[in-house]
Amino acid sequence: MANVLDYSTDNCSIGRALSVLGEKWTMLVLRDVFNGVRRFEDMHERIGAPRQVLSHRLGRLVDEGLLRRVPYREQGQRQRNEYRLTEKGLDLYPALVALLRWGDRWLVDMDGPSVTLHHKDCGAQIDVTVRCAEGHELASARDARPQPGPGARLRPVAVADTPAGS
Amino acid sequence: MANVLDYSTDNCSIGRALSVLGEKWTMLVLRDVFNGVRRFEDMHERIGAPRQVLSHRLGRLVDEGLLRRVPYREQGQRQRNEYRLTEKGLDLYPALVALLRWGDRWLVDMDGPSVTLHHKDCGAQIDVTVRCAEGHELASARDARPQPGPGARLRPVAVADTPAGS
Repeated sequence: MANVLDYSTDNCSIGRALSVLGEKWTMLVLRDVFNGVRRFEDMHERIGAPRQVLSHRLGRLVDEGLLRRVPYREQGQRQRNEYRLTEKGLDLYPALVALLRWGDRWLVDMDGPSVTLHHKDCGAQIDVTVRCAEGHELASARDARPQPGPGARLRPVAVADTPAGS
Repeated sequence: MANVLDYSTDNCSIGRALSVLGEKWTMLVLRDVFNGVRRFEDMHERIGAPRQVLSHRLGRLVDEGLLRRVPYREQGQRQRNEYRLTEKGLDLYPALVALLRWGDRWLVDMDGPSVTLHHKDCGAQIDVTVRCAEGHELASARDARPQPGPGARLRPVAVADTPAGS
């Protein structure tokens, strides 16, 4: 873009996404729900987050509209809630697949990935691709150009920053 | 998959990706470098992380092989380093675009996104899509099926968990 340094980051969509998703454990909770793990005790065992923290993260995801609570009752137990993805939560799937695939390519052990994802209909493995509205596939970020969008805001006139400790 | 609860999450690629990317500010640093912001002072101004924290995050990204340092010298100043993406860092582009687009859809102000991404060659806007190796586009996570991969590990035989505080 013209000069990226002239623009404010206040309404950056990545910044906003991370303000919802960036807390420790949150993405792992979503991974679990995408994998069909919906109950607190199961997540607690798999994720290893302290109970209070896990409970806070789940509450936040409900408040933000990514998960909803659905009551269930096992025989002889009190009623509990399980967690299901809303439309807003389901819509994060491409981001989670992209992180998974990056991990598969760069951080995997010799024996290969622990999970593979397949198209239900044909069984072929799935991946994310970056494409433009004309259908061209982009090989890398170098084929893309960021531009100020309709909500772009110029930064306030620069004030001399004082480095910490000076 | 058979029963997701039978499998270990120790070598989950999402978990591993987040162990590199999940610290506060790290993804914003990468966003900036993808946007051509390469210098410490510019990142500091845009991201607002404390200098020591930003410095630590940059060091970690270099250690993990996502960024590399390239020396530069402005007239009359001492030599400094700027930060550029390695192949491993560039390969995160689909994940960042996916987060951006999710933020665009769900968290944006009335005036629209602050940045739009375009294919350099044709100018059309870009997005991420989830597709299988046969070329079918998946409309949602419901069209996908996770399966134990070659590195899948069964969890050790379950030990009764003791809830905290009991």
